[in-house]
Amino acid sequence: MHAMSIKDFHLPLNSDQAKIDEVLGKFKAADIQIYAAGVIYMKSNAEVDQAFDYARRIGVPMIVGSPNRELLPYVEQRVKKDNIKLAIHNHGPEDKMYPGPKDVYDAIKGMDNRIGLCFDIGHGIRAGADPAKATKDFSSRLLDMHIKDLAANTSSDQAIEMGRGIIDFPSLVRALKEIKYSGRCSIEYEQQVKDPLPGIAESVGYFRGVMKTLG
Amino acid sequence: MHAMSIKDFHLPLNSDQAKIDEVLGKFKAADIQIYAAGVIYMKSNAEVDQAFDYARRIGVPMIVGSPNRELLPYVEQRVKKDNIKLAIHNHGPEDKMYPGPKDVYDAIKGMDNRIGLCFDIGHGIRAGADPAKATKDFSSRLLDMHIKDLAANTSSDQAIEMGRGIIDFPSLVRALKEIKYSGRCSIEYEQQVKDPLPGIAESVGYFRGVMKTLG
Repeated sequence: MHAMSIKDFHLPLNSDQAKIDEVLGKFKAADIQIYAAGVIYMKSNAEVDQAFDYARRIGVPMIVGSPNRELLPYVEQRVKKDNIKLAIHNHGPEDKMYPGPKDVYDAIKGMDNRIGLCFDIGHGIRAGADPAKATKDFSSRLLDMHIKDLAANTSSDQAIEMGRGIIDFPSLVRALKEIKYSGRCSIEYEQQVKDPLPGIAESVGYFRGVMKTLG
Repeated sequence: MHAMSIKDFHLPLNSDQAKIDEVLGKFKAADIQIYAAGVIYMKSNAEVDQAFDYARRIGVPMIVGSPNRELLPYVEQRVKKDNIKLAIHNHGPEDKMYPGPKDVYDAIKGMDNRIGLCFDIGHGIRAGADPAKATKDFSSRLLDMHIKDLAANTSSDQAIEMGRGIIDFPSLVRALKEIKYSGRCSIEYEQQVKDPLPGIAESVGYFRGVMKTLG
C-alpha cells in the first residue's frame, strides 16, 4: 500500500495538533501517502469550514465529500480560498443528493473545476450508471475513484472482492486508459472486517492483472 | 478453492486406510477435489509401485512425479496397468534429470501419452524456458501446471506473488487459450508460510484478471 484516503476513524475531524502529528507520523513511517480525506458529510456552513480546516491542517490536497446541495456556493468559496479539491462521492439510490455520477456532474458542472467527482463504481452501478461509460462521460471532472465489485445489481449494497461480481473491469480500465485518467483508484473493501487483507489482496491482484493485460 | 494437488504432508504415502478415509473426508467436506498427488520422487521400482499404489488407493487420476530416468519403462507399465497419468515435474537448473520442460518432453515423447509434463513455470524459466513458448511447444504432453511468479531469473528459487515479478502472464494465458489447455493451473505459493492466504489471494486475483481480460 502506497497511498490512501483517510477517514475520520483514522483521524477524527476535531483532532488537536498532537493527535494529528501522531497519526500522520504513523502513515509517514509506513511510507503511505494520504492523498485525500473523506468521505466527509457537510450539512451546514460550519461543517464545510470544519472539513476544509481539517484538510488544510493535515495537508491533504483533496476532500472526498458529500455537501448538501445548497452549500455548494459556499463550498466553492472554500475550494478557491484553500486551493483544496473537493471530489463529491455518489452513494447509490438511497442517496437523495448524489445517487450516481451524473447527479454529481450536473450539480457542479458550472463551478470551479477543482470541484469534481469521486466516482464510486459500486454505488454508481446501483444508481443505473455504467462504470466505463460514466468514466468517459464525466472524465473532465473525474478526480477520484472508489472501486469494488458488486455481487448483484440490487438496491442493497453488496460490495465484494473484485473479479467475483458483475462489474466489467476490463471495460472500465480501457475507459480509464482512453481518458488518460491520472487520479487514483482506491479499493474500498468493507467485507471480512476482522481479516480484510485476503480480500484486499485478491482485489489488488485482479485489478493489476487487468491493467497488465491491457498494457 | 475447488481443487488441489495433494502432497505427502497432507497424506503420507504410507498411510493406512483409516488415515486415508480421514483426510479424504476432510477434503470432501470442504468440497475440494483432489485432482492429483505429488510431487512424488521415485528412485527405485519399489518407489514407483508405492506411488502408483498410493494414487490408486486414494483415487486420484494423476501423479505429479519425478521418477529416475532409468525407471521410465517401468513407470510406463504402471501407467498402462492402472490407467493413472504421470505428469513429470521440472525443477530448474539444480535438477539434473528434469531442469526444464524440454528435458521432460525429450525423455517421454515416445512413450504412452498418459505420461507428460507438469510444467512448473518458475523452475522452467530458471532453466531457460519461455513459459508461453514452452506451453505451445509441448502442448501435446502438457498435463498439469505449477504457476507462480519469480522475483528474478536467477539460479536460486525466488517464487513470489503473481504479478509482482518477471513472468509475462498475459502471454502465458494467450498460449494456454491457443492450445485449448484443459488441465489445471495450480498456484504454488511457498512464501509467508505462517499466513499464506493474502499472497495466494493476490495471485488468484491476478490470474483471474488476466484471464477475464483475454476473454
